[in-house]
Amino acid sequence: MSQYRVLIDTDDEKGLVHKVSTVFYKNDLNMLSNSEFVDKENNKFFMRSVVDGDIELKKLKKEISEAIPSNANIEVIEPKKKNIIIMATKEMHALGDILVRHEAGELEANILAVISNYDDLESFVKKFDIPFITISHVGLDRATHESKILECLAGYKDIDYIVLAKYMRILTPRFVEAYEDKIINIHHSFLPAFIGANPYKQAYDRGVKIIGATSHFVNNNLDEGPIIAQEVIHVDHAYGWKDMQRSGKDVEKVVLSRALKLALEDRIFVYANKTVIF
Amino acid sequence: MSQYRVLIDTDDEKGLVHKVSTVFYKNDLNMLSNSEFVDKENNKFFMRSVVDGDIELKKLKKEISEAIPSNANIEVIEPKKKNIIIMATKEMHALGDILVRHEAGELEANILAVISNYDDLESFVKKFDIPFITISHVGLDRATHESKILECLAGYKDIDYIVLAKYMRILTPRFVEAYEDKIINIHHSFLPAFIGANPYKQAYDRGVKIIGATSHFVNNNLDEGPIIAQEVIHVDHAYGWKDMQRSGKDVEKVVLSRALKLALEDRIFVYANKTVIF
Amino acid sequence: MSQYRVLIDTDDEKGLVHKVSTVFYKNDLNMLSNSEFVDKENNKFFMRSVVDGDIELKKLKKEISEAIPSNANIEVIEPKKKNIIIMATKEMHALGDILVRHEAGELEANILAVISNYDDLESFVKKFDIPFITISHVGLDRATHESKILECLAGYKDIDYIVLAKYMRILTPRFVEAYEDKIINIHHSFLPAFIGANPYKQAYDRGVKIIGATSHFVNNNLDEGPIIAQEVIHVDHAYGWKDMQRSGKDVEKVVLSRALKLALEDRIFVYANKTVIF
Amino acid sequence: MSQYRVLIDTDDEKGLVHKVSTVFYKNDLNMLSNSEFVDKENNKFFMRSVVDGDIELKKLKKEISEAIPSNANIEVIEPKKKNIIIMATKEMHALGDILVRHEAGELEANILAVISNYDDLESFVKKFDIPFITISHVGLDRATHESKILECLAGYKDIDYIVLAKYMRILTPRFVEAYEDKIINIHHSFLPAFIGANPYKQAYDRGVKIIGATSHFVNNNLDEGPIIAQEVIHVDHAYGWKDMQRSGKDVEKVVLSRALKLALEDRIFVYANKTVIF
Repeated sequence: MSQYRVLIDTDDEKGLVHKVSTVFYKNDLNMLSNSEFVDKENNKFFMRSVVDGDIELKKLKKEISEAIPSNANIEVIEPKKKNIIIMATKEMHALGDILVRHEAGELEANILAVISNYDDLESFVKKFDIPFITISHVGLDRATHESKILECLAGYKDIDYIVLAKYMRILTPRFVEAYEDKIINIHHSFLPAFIGANPYKQAYDRGVKIIGATSHFVNNNLDEGPIIAQEVIHVDHAYGWKDMQRSGKDVEKVVLSRALKLALEDRIFVYANKTVIF
Repeated sequence: MSQYRVLIDTDDEKGLVHKVSTVFYKNDLNMLSNSEFVDKENNKFFMRSVVDGDIELKKLKKEISEAIPSNANIEVIEPKKKNIIIMATKEMHALGDILVRHEAGELEANILAVISNYDDLESFVKKFDIPFITISHVGLDRATHESKILECLAGYKDIDYIVLAKYMRILTPRFVEAYEDKIINIHHSFLPAFIGANPYKQAYDRGVKIIGATSHFVNNNLDEGPIIAQEVIHVDHAYGWKDMQRSGKDVEKVVLSRALKLALEDRIFVYANKTVIF
Repeated sequence: MSQYRVLIDTDDEKGLVHKVSTVFYKNDLNMLSNSEFVDKENNKFFMRSVVDGDIELKKLKKEISEAIPSNANIEVIEPKKKNIIIMATKEMHALGDILVRHEAGELEANILAVISNYDDLESFVKKFDIPFITISHVGLDRATHESKILECLAGYKDIDYIVLAKYMRILTPRFVEAYEDKIINIHHSFLPAFIGANPYKQAYDRGVKIIGATSHFVNNNLDEGPIIAQEVIHVDHAYGWKDMQRSGKDVEKVVLSRALKLALEDRIFVYANKTVIF
Repeated sequence: MSQYRVLIDTDDEKGLVHKVSTVFYKNDLNMLSNSEFVDKENNKFFMRSVVDGDIELKKLKKEISEAIPSNANIEVIEPKKKNIIIMATKEMHALGDILVRHEAGELEANILAVISNYDDLESFVKKFDIPFITISHVGLDRATHESKILECLAGYKDIDYIVLAKYMRILTPRFVEAYEDKIINIHHSFLPAFIGANPYKQAYDRGVKIIGATSHFVNNNLDEGPIIAQEVIHVDHAYGWKDMQRSGKDVEKVVLSRALKLALEDRIFVYANKTVIF
């Protein structure tokens, strides 16, 4: 008995659910859960099924691909721990939240390493027996610094996701393209409000009554990648921007961990710079 | 071209999605949306599809019933305005919210009448050209009062839902059984906290930091029917119970209207004293 | 026995609470509530007290002004219904929410009139026995249209607040300056995200997971005035922009009514393009 | 220059703010923040001021006590790290959240030790160089087990708070009385709903659409102590009770840490089985 997550996205047309469910039925598979969505504006169909039964992954994928149009994207995934790299700078809260979840066995992931441009977090990370790699940017131009990180990353095969847990440097297109739809960031504002540096200061200056955090995939435009999860908290006039920053940390860590969990469970489709999440 | 909402609940078994979607496919129907849920604990399958195409309602229902086990509950519904009766006592906010939505054309409903045990709301309701019927309980025992209401209701055929918009009297089993799963109530607490009278006073006395409202179908046990929707707001020590009551009104009206909308769109299954909502 | 709301803002210095509370004490006034805030960044002090006792308004104000620095802003207000004008365009929800609250006696306000650039809402408003004035913009340039509205407004003396309940036209500086800090708007986004036209479409295109509404005083920069209240709701990929618009209405009306209530209760200080709210 | 937190609660009467602020003014103290609340129902006055200036703690307390009625409760506190003991059982999330905050320097506290009735968390706690003490309850009656814990606690002087971070055993009156208003618990439901064991199972069985967590001081009645903080999240029919439990952890840890922060900053008054929080 094997369990598979089947993810399909394709141009919408009549009969897709019928065709896919017929493959499951003929192979005597059990549908544990099933979600569909049709984006009518773009005429796109999305489907995520979890099935179990007695079939090989390749056979299942082959049968589905024969049943539906040939230009469909089909993924058949056997649930297992994914490999992640965490990048951080100096802040402990978002990183710490992931490390504690990992330690508690809550996370469907192996943390291969934590990479930082400072060594402040080294002793903290090592408590958890996870490799900590400092790659300082001091004295290096952005391209050179990134080359060193990319080189380091190249040493790991099968990186499923890179999690930016308050990594405070901008990634270049070269980096982003190397890990397309695999880099998950937490931005400390309710995007698209307050793009860029020090969003809490921006929020304070604007006098907002709510602050938030946004987890998104990183693309080439700063803070403009597909949004995975967002959350907010209420603030009032008594919050200086440092109070917002302090309170915001609780939102940041929860949102990043939530987005990571969705990714690890293969629940996210990326399309048209947005996400469809089942 | 007709559009139908298809609602199915039945014991779970392999192939149900396949069988139903095959009926849709063979009849060249378009699936506009589709949701499924399997309650593994109770081995129950729920499915709601919206389809359009060229088929008669009876034929569609017949084909589905032939395709799946005979003990399945199958509803095929053509979207149209449902008939509702609103019952209220003296408060205007929840009732007013529904009347304004109705006036704005937001509500998939005809409001047949508003019935109250007082006449306080009469002039308000009549502004909206909706019949207002006062059935006073003064001097009557509960059974006699209810008989008068039931008699009044019997004058309307095809009542789809009775909405209790802060109707402050308890209904007897006779009434509830006559309109099973058709009576939608708003209770002014976050159920199951603070069942019964004056929940805001109870909440105040307990010193809670959050208050809420709950919309539910009415069954024979006071405030214990299947929950449709809940919402909360934060309060603090500065709220007396009347402040809670005042602030709570905003939650009550939003939650009741949300629950009503779900009912009018045929999105609710009732099962095991709970709701499955698509 | 009279009750007063005392609002003071001034440069911060030691002893302000002492000095003001001494005035209250000497006059044998009872402090029903008292709130203070010091904006350390701008060295500004804000205080709002509700007191009752046997003293004339002018005498109380005079004594306070003699006790604290002469450049302080001091308001002593006797609670009474404020006069408001509502401006709307075609949408009923935010306007309707205010009208129902007014009808229920919840609002510390007299609604002098509803002004609209269309007559769509006329029959609705007239149900509530409130004057409805259509001032069409068709065929008029912005300045001329506004002149007609300003002329109409000039016919009312003592307008405390102008409430823009989804009035869908931009006001010019001339208008805004005539009613500085008196115009309360509801913007249908979580500002400063999605300034300008059709924020729900913008939100949909960006793929946000939360939408919101913002009530603010209107200043000369579009959607950039001091924020009074904000609220949000969660959305997902299944929301088209019209679904967002529909769901957003519930947030818009709640936020606008909340902001209006704060204004009517004299709870808002405007300072540095922000609000301090007690 | 010293900074003090001044907390006063007493029967309400005219002039209290005047009298206390006069003490501050005469001693040339700066009021950094000030909050008051009058519970009119119980005629109780609460005040929390943060002041700085050149005065000794004892002198300040003496002057305040001479200025206001003799039965007032007056606390003058110099901000410093408080001593806390954490008690846990087997779950890592709430404990881990506190440990990471402590490690990040966010917490105004020294963690003296973590005490558990199991040793599951030992290696985790020791990573943080915090003493871990296992006091097993196996084979012991409740009184004997508690005596061992109380004995252990007696070895620490100046315990300010005992934090129950999912300590899954009920404390007896003897224990509770020994640390009155010093024991902070997190209950995994939105109290007063779902008192007692397995609240997520209870919530699932009731079919609620919102689950929550409540942090409260522990008194002699199970789950009935004064509430400090509450938070909720939305759930739907797809959540089994274990899903609720999993999702609930994120709320539990945030609420417990929030309550602890309020306690460490001396922001909580306990009165009439409720809290006043500034």
